[in-house]
Amino acid sequence: MQKKIPISIVVGSVSDLKIIEPCIEILKKFSVEYEVSVISAHRTPEKLDLLIETFEKKGTEVIIACAGLSSALPGVIASKTTLPVIGIPSDAGALSGLDALLSISQMPSGVPVACVAIGKTGAINAGLLAVEILSLKDKRLKAKLKKYRAEKSKEIYLQNKKLKTLGLKKFLSSLGKK
Amino acid sequence: MQKKIPISIVVGSVSDLKIIEPCIEILKKFSVEYEVSVISAHRTPEKLDLLIETFEKKGTEVIIACAGLSSALPGVIASKTTLPVIGIPSDAGALSGLDALLSISQMPSGVPVACVAIGKTGAINAGLLAVEILSLKDKRLKAKLKKYRAEKSKEIYLQNKKLKTLGLKKFLSSLGKK
Amino acid sequence: MQKKIPISIVVGSVSDLKIIEPCIEILKKFSVEYEVSVISAHRTPEKLDLLIETFEKKGTEVIIACAGLSSALPGVIASKTTLPVIGIPSDAGALSGLDALLSISQMPSGVPVACVAIGKTGAINAGLLAVEILSLKDKRLKAKLKKYRAEKSKEIYLQNKKLKTLGLKKFLSSLGKK
Amino acid sequence: MQKKIPISIVVGSVSDLKIIEPCIEILKKFSVEYEVSVISAHRTPEKLDLLIETFEKKGTEVIIACAGLSSALPGVIASKTTLPVIGIPSDAGALSGLDALLSISQMPSGVPVACVAIGKTGAINAGLLAVEILSLKDKRLKAKLKKYRAEKSKEIYLQNKKLKTLGLKKFLSSLGKK
Amino acid sequence: MQKKIPISIVVGSVSDLKIIEPCIEILKKFSVEYEVSVISAHRTPEKLDLLIETFEKKGTEVIIACAGLSSALPGVIASKTTLPVIGIPSDAGALSGLDALLSISQMPSGVPVACVAIGKTGAINAGLLAVEILSLKDKRLKAKLKKYRAEKSKEIYLQNKKLKTLGLKKFLSSLGKK
Amino acid sequence: MQKKIPISIVVGSVSDLKIIEPCIEILKKFSVEYEVSVISAHRTPEKLDLLIETFEKKGTEVIIACAGLSSALPGVIASKTTLPVIGIPSDAGALSGLDALLSISQMPSGVPVACVAIGKTGAINAGLLAVEILSLKDKRLKAKLKKYRAEKSKEIYLQNKKLKTLGLKKFLSSLGKK
Amino acid sequence: MQKKIPISIVVGSVSDLKIIEPCIEILKKFSVEYEVSVISAHRTPEKLDLLIETFEKKGTEVIIACAGLSSALPGVIASKTTLPVIGIPSDAGALSGLDALLSISQMPSGVPVACVAIGKTGAINAGLLAVEILSLKDKRLKAKLKKYRAEKSKEIYLQNKKLKTLGLKKFLSSLGKK
Amino acid sequence: MQKKIPISIVVGSVSDLKIIEPCIEILKKFSVEYEVSVISAHRTPEKLDLLIETFEKKGTEVIIACAGLSSALPGVIASKTTLPVIGIPSDAGALSGLDALLSISQMPSGVPVACVAIGKTGAINAGLLAVEILSLKDKRLKAKLKKYRAEKSKEIYLQNKKLKTLGLKKFLSSLGKK
Repeated sequence: MQKKIPISIVVGSVSDLKIIEPCIEILKKFSVEYEVSVISAHRTPEKLDLLIETFEKKGTEVIIACAGLSSALPGVIASKTTLPVIGIPSDAGALSGLDALLSISQMPSGVPVACVAIGKTGAINAGLLAVEILSLKDKRLKAKLKKYRAEKSKEIYLQNKKLKTLGLKKFLSSLGKK
Repeated sequence: MQKKIPISIVVGSVSDLKIIEPCIEILKKFSVEYEVSVISAHRTPEKLDLLIETFEKKGTEVIIACAGLSSALPGVIASKTTLPVIGIPSDAGALSGLDALLSISQMPSGVPVACVAIGKTGAINAGLLAVEILSLKDKRLKAKLKKYRAEKSKEIYLQNKKLKTLGLKKFLSSLGKK
Repeated sequence: MQKKIPISIVVGSVSDLKIIEPCIEILKKFSVEYEVSVISAHRTPEKLDLLIETFEKKGTEVIIACAGLSSALPGVIASKTTLPVIGIPSDAGALSGLDALLSISQMPSGVPVACVAIGKTGAINAGLLAVEILSLKDKRLKAKLKKYRAEKSKEIYLQNKKLKTLGLKKFLSSLGKK
Repeated sequence: MQKKIPISIVVGSVSDLKIIEPCIEILKKFSVEYEVSVISAHRTPEKLDLLIETFEKKGTEVIIACAGLSSALPGVIASKTTLPVIGIPSDAGALSGLDALLSISQMPSGVPVACVAIGKTGAINAGLLAVEILSLKDKRLKAKLKKYRAEKSKEIYLQNKKLKTLGLKKFLSSLGKK
Repeated sequence: MQKKIPISIVVGSVSDLKIIEPCIEILKKFSVEYEVSVISAHRTPEKLDLLIETFEKKGTEVIIACAGLSSALPGVIASKTTLPVIGIPSDAGALSGLDALLSISQMPSGVPVACVAIGKTGAINAGLLAVEILSLKDKRLKAKLKKYRAEKSKEIYLQNKKLKTLGLKKFLSSLGKK
Repeated sequence: MQKKIPISIVVGSVSDLKIIEPCIEILKKFSVEYEVSVISAHRTPEKLDLLIETFEKKGTEVIIACAGLSSALPGVIASKTTLPVIGIPSDAGALSGLDALLSISQMPSGVPVACVAIGKTGAINAGLLAVEILSLKDKRLKAKLKKYRAEKSKEIYLQNKKLKTLGLKKFLSSLGKK
Repeated sequence: MQKKIPISIVVGSVSDLKIIEPCIEILKKFSVEYEVSVISAHRTPEKLDLLIETFEKKGTEVIIACAGLSSALPGVIASKTTLPVIGIPSDAGALSGLDALLSISQMPSGVPVACVAIGKTGAINAGLLAVEILSLKDKRLKAKLKKYRAEKSKEIYLQNKKLKTLGLKKFLSSLGKK
Repeated sequence: MQKKIPISIVVGSVSDLKIIEPCIEILKKFSVEYEVSVISAHRTPEKLDLLIETFEKKGTEVIIACAGLSSALPGVIASKTTLPVIGIPSDAGALSGLDALLSISQMPSGVPVACVAIGKTGAINAGLLAVEILSLKDKRLKAKLKKYRAEKSKEIYLQNKKLKTLGLKKFLSSLGKK
């Protein structure tokens, strides 16, 4: 029997792969299976159809799609499946992702896409949103999510504490050159 | 035993209620239980906390939040739950919803919100996205979604056919004054 | 033998039909055959494939596509044909067509779309651009284009003359209430 | 008895600390006590509540909050206190702070935030605005503010004088490589 | 002895007076004395100087300035006083107040202005922000502010309750035609 | 001998004539001779050349050009004359004049255009700027300009006075329904 | 007999030449003859007229024009020919090409320009769009276009395959430093 | 007798001096006398008044003002003189000069400013526009302007010729590394 792969990540071009790296780190952290494909809605539309046909067999539950510029990828996928689709606007191009953000968020009625933030910030949140959706029927995942939130909260708490102890100047130099 | 209410809709002000009407029509069409609340993230933050505390008992699975201007409501809810939150930018105010769209989509990493389109278009898609998420563990809902898509597709197909039969002029006048 | 229909106009929803009316007037003026279809890239993708398959038989040479919001229609058509595709951004929605303009113009490399202006202005120019393309192998059309330009030029010339004769105040009231 | 700390600075993430450095220099220059905390409205909401509870005891009078992207921090603080809140939009992210600027300035009615400029320019002005507010009941501070303005004015006056003496070319090279 | 007038409201043109009406209602509600002037930074600069000279005698503590387009008024006032200045972007002109919002918020370092939202929403918040500042040395005002917040919170609470009782349809029609 | 006509106003289309009406009122007020033409840079380029050839004979000194959308008119005129050209962005089209504003202001180096505000506000200022330029060699015009400024200043002064006397409510109703 | 040169490329300034390099690579790949000229609509308008006069003799069929800022070049050419004109917005200047994009796309009715994406992406697509237009009467070119699409599709297919084989980490490092 | 200085250049801060360098080169090229001052509308308003008082004695005819962010400088100068004022938006700050462009162009009626392009491009054009204005009463300057235009035109003509001779590749490398 085939292994279930609940998350299918699709990027519109090789240059978008770096953006979704932090998304993949999130999925790994939550031990959620995923696959990554490079498929362009505009340049390889038939490959997209082939991928979508495999979703049922693989048990795909959420699709995460990242593309830049006119960024049709998330919407085109959403038009061919009733699975939830999350769209990440890539910051490629002269307009820094504003074009992609509008394309992904301003979908016409009938074909929803869940738009997250431009670039790597959005990629992290796409991963977390997918996990939130999966956790609706997976209590262990729900528990991990709560733990993750607590860790993140603690991280900021500890940074805050360190800031109070060191003072701003020392704290900033302790961060290394960034 | 309390009835399960999988969808909790929250709007930031009374003036946003009209925007979410088509969202509610979608939920009714799919026979999905929902509740609607008017709660402002900024003006009644403690009421929001009370609402969020009821989610577990009610079996809430997806939150749909609509607000305008700086539109903090979806993000503030998302910061206090690990349930998926869908944000609808209201088109209130001088900037026609661009401010709300950016606030909802550009969430910082760690706290995802699923942003949909500005206004009523987004409200319809928020309803459908919520149903897509619920349908991951409800085969009857999945079947209804496919039927809905087919109906919408047929609707356009019939409009197209009517357009071909009547010609553009007659077709446009057949639409009544709009 | 089937009649040749060199121009295929596609709109993404019934509400966009009014925008393309002046495009059709241009095509009629130049006695260029056309067909109009309502097909959504997102809601009826398979209908789009069926339409595209008919292009060869009908002798389609240029496609004119109009859609609003994330406006994927022109790009999706362009991804499935090597015929020139002209995209008209509809001014539907809260952002007055800026979203559609960016989606249509900011196409990724490999799949060109010729973007024109938002709304009815763009529709007129889409018609003229299509005629310009057809006129590359149709001298009669080329001659008509030059005549059209001369007429438009004359129209402005006559308005200017009338303005000089009447003076601004009288000229403006002669325009009727607009 | 606890020392009064009239200014409480809160940033949404460690990466925003560098932005508020010039704000702190202003407060030091005016010998106004302040504290700095890293607390995220979205990721550590309960820490924010804890901080806000300490305001009365510490004699906090003005809060300065800096965050990027959807930048809910200033508004969320403002919703939980009736102290004046000044918001600094961070220039983090693909949109260079335009998203944060709109989020902070376009607050819904009932919960005011005083928005200043994006980035370090705004941080300086946030510090000065806070001092202006404090100076309403502190004549020494008012006097210092007037002296500061005079100094700044003199600085520009001297630069202008030097420019007149040296000429543009020499003046620009005297500024060193910048 | 002259009556103290802690708030001085200045608008750049007669057409901006309607925008500040809700600001004045706030000040009346809190029984805070105010004066309103129509003075243009660009067209009557010397009148502005005269007004500013009266501030000390009148005990002015906060200035609220509203102007549209390039909206220099708040900044010009701020350049001539060390009192806190709150700027309201008017929504006059073709750009719906985006120009005024940027002019008011993007002040250069050294001369702070507290920018609030565009139009009447901003006017309400300008009034509240001014009251928050005054309340730093007026405990009765502070108490009133808390009461006001509680009332607003209750208002939304009652609307929410009514919505739950009536259901959305009836609730919306109970709002009258709006 | 031909009468001197120092100001030549050119609009890109009949629909822009209404925008320049207040410009003409300014020129009449200052008794400056002008001519108005409807000439499109794009649709009647050769007419533009003919107009420009008449400038020397007529003694044209300043050109005022108004156009919408991509608004090439002011720049094209500027490319063919060394007379100062003032450009007024028309607010025609879906983007409310933002497109025209950028086209007119963002001229490439070598061909200056003096851009003023969008629409009727810009038209008034275009008239005044032209008069300012003409007044550099016409002392009577310079004196009139100073008188005009004083009148405008007085107008606001009287409005301010009336506002103080009547109070805001009565003053606003005295303005009639607007 | 003169060699036919179906494509005439015009750039507004030397600095735009680098942008059109990938356009030229496309034309070379398809063995389509072209010429490149540096001619400014604003600075050398008469040179433009001379160039346009040569089009008939050379058999020019499509013009590709690239310019930045107010970017009048494509429109001015379009106003003087009935050949199809493709406009590429250059990303020169402070606004990253948004100004040029609006100028080129928002042409007034009567004078169409086919706008493509900002910068090099647009340059590639301008080349392809020109080839698509030429291929309407050149079957060999049509066949080459289909082959090109297939190659591009295959390229992505192979990248996708390599990604599946190597995994994301190794695939990304195999891309070299980029 | 004092030397006439027809052009007065004012910048809002030392950091804007580099932007106006090409403006000064234009003025030198045309042998037009100028002075440069660093005066902030917001930080040294009284110095501005002093400068303006010297205009009559010096024979100032045109003012060129450059400032960034909310960029009140050109408008404030314009409010205190009836000499023509040219405003250059500086590209300082997070919004790349869009804020300054809107502030300078969107002046309220009654106080005109001639806005040119953002940054150094605008600085060149500000210089040329000033010379165009001065040339209205200086035939030698008018002749120089025509010569300058011809030179610029020739420059592009020669670049075009060189491009034709060398071909694109060689031409681009002949430009040196840029």
